[in-house]
Amino acid sequence: MARTTGSDGGRTEAATREAALSLIARQGYEAVSMRQLAGEVGVQAAALYRYFPTKEDLLFTLMREHMEGLQQAWEAARPAAPDPAARLSAFVENHIRFHVARRHSTHVSNMELRSLSKDRLSQILRLRGSYEKELRQILREGAEAGLFIVDDVGMTAMAIIQMITGVIVWFRPDERLSVEEVAETYLSMTRRLVGADDAREKRNVRPHAEFRAG
Amino acid sequence: MARTTGSDGGRTEAATREAALSLIARQGYEAVSMRQLAGEVGVQAAALYRYFPTKEDLLFTLMREHMEGLQQAWEAARPAAPDPAARLSAFVENHIRFHVARRHSTHVSNMELRSLSKDRLSQILRLRGSYEKELRQILREGAEAGLFIVDDVGMTAMAIIQMITGVIVWFRPDERLSVEEVAETYLSMTRRLVGADDAREKRNVRPHAEFRAG
Repeated sequence: MARTTGSDGGRTEAATREAALSLIARQGYEAVSMRQLAGEVGVQAAALYRYFPTKEDLLFTLMREHMEGLQQAWEAARPAAPDPAARLSAFVENHIRFHVARRHSTHVSNMELRSLSKDRLSQILRLRGSYEKELRQILREGAEAGLFIVDDVGMTAMAIIQMITGVIVWFRPDERLSVEEVAETYLSMTRRLVGADDAREKRNVRPHAEFRAG
Repeated sequence: MARTTGSDGGRTEAATREAALSLIARQGYEAVSMRQLAGEVGVQAAALYRYFPTKEDLLFTLMREHMEGLQQAWEAARPAAPDPAARLSAFVENHIRFHVARRHSTHVSNMELRSLSKDRLSQILRLRGSYEKELRQILREGAEAGLFIVDDVGMTAMAIIQMITGVIVWFRPDERLSVEEVAETYLSMTRRLVGADDAREKRNVRPHAEFRAG
């Protein structure tokens, strides 16, 4: 469905997404009705059904856009250089920034998978899988280059993603820490977790040796 | 409410807890009715109300018992020795074992907090806080003894807890890895995350110096 932002229809659709993310994050998908959502947006329920024929269409759209947005943000943030340490830093920082700015959307994406139909669940899981594959690739290359210590690529990727996504559970941007400080601390933890500072010393590998000429 | 396991009432109450955990984990608290739950247990809804006067009483009981069980498991697993590294190992291993054995209960405890009344939410968060404090204490003592590298005790505790709880999202006991192998890999990651192997070398601190005589 094309978005016609600026038109009344575009505004209704955008307002519906916003209101749906906030309501579902706070009350849960099952507890939110299209009627209640329409009330929140200030339109008749019939107006919502024009954009989202079913409540599940709406949920699926929210989740798909979340994952597509994350993938796009990562593609924009991904460094051109192939250095695994620089790519790991960019991955962690982008992931934290993206999710902290989209707490409701993250909650909905993580908590409401069970409400998707089987086919749509597969589509969302495929998007997730392809995003997570980027991190696995970074870890694998870092380990092969002797820059990282990675016992199990899959488990390490899951551990890092769950740790850095978890920021949204406790972090509030208006409190004692800025998102930059939080990202920096999590990056230090991630670098230690993959032995980024020690692998080199211990294995006596020259920094980024394989990427430099000479 | 005293549990009278062995009596019919005790069996009904226990079956209700089990069925409720499974249904709520799969469908979400809002989507599950007491009538549906009674059907699952094979009793009249009135029989459930004897044990759990409201659906929220049931949810609160499940969450309280989860946290109390976790605290008890940790008290049984906590090493007598004050060595922070040994306590960290025991904490990670106990946490993973406990949650892997209680996937439904963990899902319910993590995902349905929003459905508790304010007062009961506070009670559950207090129990969580006191459990998490144990980990913060271990990290603080490890850092003070020069055994761990901890940039921020609170953030490190959250990062570790989210990482190790996340095991239940992907781990299935019947697949390629045993819970022992998973716990061991996560423990290695945790030890690196807190610099447990490097802090000593780097700071030239004798192992557990402060806990040994002479």
